[in-house]
Amino acid sequence: MPTRHPNLTTMDELYAPTLKETPAEAELISHQLMLRAGMIRKTASGIYSYLPLGWRVIKKIERIVREEMDAIGCQEVSLPVLQPAELWQESGRWPVYGPELMRLTDRHEREFCLGPTHEEIITALVRAELRSYKQLPVTLYQINLKFRDEMRPRFGLMRGREFIMKDAYSFGADQAALDADYAAQEGAYRRICERMEMDYRMVDADSGEIGGSVSAEFMALAEAGESEIVYCDCGFAADTEIYDQETCPKCGAPLHHARGIEVGQIFQLGTKYSEAMGATYQDEDGNDKPFVMGCYGIGVTRIAAALIEQKHDDRGCIWPASVAPAQVAVLALDAEGEVAEAATKLARTLAEAGVEVILDTRAERPGAKFADADLIGCPWQLIVGKRGLAAGVVEIKKRATGETHEAPLAEAANHLLES
Amino acid sequence: MPTRHPNLTTMDELYAPTLKETPAEAELISHQLMLRAGMIRKTASGIYSYLPLGWRVIKKIERIVREEMDAIGCQEVSLPVLQPAELWQESGRWPVYGPELMRLTDRHEREFCLGPTHEEIITALVRAELRSYKQLPVTLYQINLKFRDEMRPRFGLMRGREFIMKDAYSFGADQAALDADYAAQEGAYRRICERMEMDYRMVDADSGEIGGSVSAEFMALAEAGESEIVYCDCGFAADTEIYDQETCPKCGAPLHHARGIEVGQIFQLGTKYSEAMGATYQDEDGNDKPFVMGCYGIGVTRIAAALIEQKHDDRGCIWPASVAPAQVAVLALDAEGEVAEAATKLARTLAEAGVEVILDTRAERPGAKFADADLIGCPWQLIVGKRGLAAGVVEIKKRATGETHEAPLAEAANHLLES
Repeated sequence: MPTRHPNLTTMDELYAPTLKETPAEAELISHQLMLRAGMIRKTASGIYSYLPLGWRVIKKIERIVREEMDAIGCQEVSLPVLQPAELWQESGRWPVYGPELMRLTDRHEREFCLGPTHEEIITALVRAELRSYKQLPVTLYQINLKFRDEMRPRFGLMRGREFIMKDAYSFGADQAALDADYAAQEGAYRRICERMEMDYRMVDADSGEIGGSVSAEFMALAEAGESEIVYCDCGFAADTEIYDQETCPKCGAPLHHARGIEVGQIFQLGTKYSEAMGATYQDEDGNDKPFVMGCYGIGVTRIAAALIEQKHDDRGCIWPASVAPAQVAVLALDAEGEVAEAATKLARTLAEAGVEVILDTRAERPGAKFADADLIGCPWQLIVGKRGLAAGVVEIKKRATGETHEAPLAEAANHLLES
Repeated sequence: MPTRHPNLTTMDELYAPTLKETPAEAELISHQLMLRAGMIRKTASGIYSYLPLGWRVIKKIERIVREEMDAIGCQEVSLPVLQPAELWQESGRWPVYGPELMRLTDRHEREFCLGPTHEEIITALVRAELRSYKQLPVTLYQINLKFRDEMRPRFGLMRGREFIMKDAYSFGADQAALDADYAAQEGAYRRICERMEMDYRMVDADSGEIGGSVSAEFMALAEAGESEIVYCDCGFAADTEIYDQETCPKCGAPLHHARGIEVGQIFQLGTKYSEAMGATYQDEDGNDKPFVMGCYGIGVTRIAAALIEQKHDDRGCIWPASVAPAQVAVLALDAEGEVAEAATKLARTLAEAGVEVILDTRAERPGAKFADADLIGCPWQLIVGKRGLAAGVVEIKKRATGETHEAPLAEAANHLLES
């Protein structure tokens, strides 16, 4: 039976070199599991190659981010990684940005940097051509590589030197427009986190090197988080450092302390870049005014690590269905004969119904197949064995809880499609 | 009526700053038209930002390439842009690669380059973990940024310093496996070209700096091409330089001379990299043998330019439907009232039926709308005007030929869906 179908991958063919031992280089559980599940490999310090399963997760995160950006009317662009020094001199950041900025010269001795962020590029892009108040507001975004030369890159995808971000930039006429753009982004970020089943809090934040005044961070709650936050069931949440200086929320509900991984940040930049770089539009009376800007980042590759930190067990990853490398792992406990045939048929039925499946008919011990399926962490496992097959049933296992139940072979696919 | 739908874009909101005049910086027609249609902008010499319409075209080319790679069983990965010098020293290319290789040092004075190609990275990636003949063959590919510090970057996307390529790498046990991989890639490349309605020829080629013996180039026929090729209706095609030294095809059909733009190249690398870098597998008898490798590149961003070179007229781009920024432009000749309402309704009907639409209800002269629609180059235009509407009809115009016919308003969507 032919197995090739866009939704169907076989473990025989898949390049996913899983590891039994925990690599010594990895401290964080997300780093350990992405290495062990054959999702990433280190190419240099803080620089990773994404193998097929890891890249699938990244692409799914990208797709969710893209859909939510498009849904609020943002327009996707792609800005260069190589940024000319001149633009950073205009904004004033070239001399003050630290050694995290990777700098290089081209063959003609012109200076460039590898973009850690794109405020200069986008401001220069629109300043000559976004001229009238009638064209505003406009929000442009990209999903692209970013570079930051960390002193001590570590923790796998959590703190790398080359990583993927979504960054959006809004251009409006006034503060009211910026408030509206900022609110739209906040809503989109909440939907993005919810679609990935992330336990998160939005907290007030310090806007740091980027500049501007109002900003908030989206924090995935996890023990491995580098930030300390305080939050309350009434919806209040803040960075502990900022919170200490403020009044406590008055709702009366108890406060919780937690650690958070920053997965996104939204900023009201105001006119910092538009004034420095002369990016203006004409208002109704023909007067030139600087754009009132916002910028909005999400760490795409970091989210993959944060989701693992939030949800895993000692056997491996537990992915939410929306970003899992596949929805279902179908395990044939025999590599040949009727068991393998029934498993292949089942996998194909699911694939044709639109479900992404990884089929394991390898000539391996059942124990090795169970271990790899748990490690990779697809939400569901369908286990086809000789004894069950004789009774006309397969076992359905939910990865998150380990719960299993049997279902008639002929109904297993429907069972899963309805779950 | 709400216009927001994933398939529907309005010219009012779209960031597509079209230009009436031809920019002096651009020699080639593709470069001129992508600038004029508001698809790209220059950020630095040979370095471009992709605006929303240009980026849509690139994403569609990427999708076609991805689908055809997946269909022949290739697995998508993502490899870093930042490549450590050590790996290039192992392959021997670090000291010999010219100034086209962009080099930099990190904060710890370690040397890196920005990858122009990824043979070293991929060979190092698999050499420790692809160990048994049972796992072979494997082909991994990525769609990613590449860098080449051209002496004189020019011609827009045709010869940039930062560009997007698909590069695939096959690992097989022997020459027979490589032959099969190479043939599979050739088939996929032909389907990719055909889906983009590209007039192309596959020609024997010199394998240049990458190394290896057998190689072929996919050439888009266009006057602006930098290569001279000779071909025959029997299927024979060759680079003129190579052809001069060979026997003429014996079919007897007349030979044609043409110019070609190289949009893809496939190489049989053999064991050049696997031997230099010690990348081996164990054969059935337990002997270590070097992988027999192939590599297969397609210039994604260059294809966008090549397609324009092949098909355009003095009014603008003429995109094939598979990569057009949208399938249909709906033009309302009035910005308000029943004309705008009918056009909006028509656009929405098409969008809901799965057709990508750009709706123009701007407060502009009809002439400006016609000019922009022709410049952007969607395959179809639907023109809604007051006189037609009174008679219950709209005009349907085919961009490629300029042919128009009228259709009843209520049937215009079906008319187009069936065409």
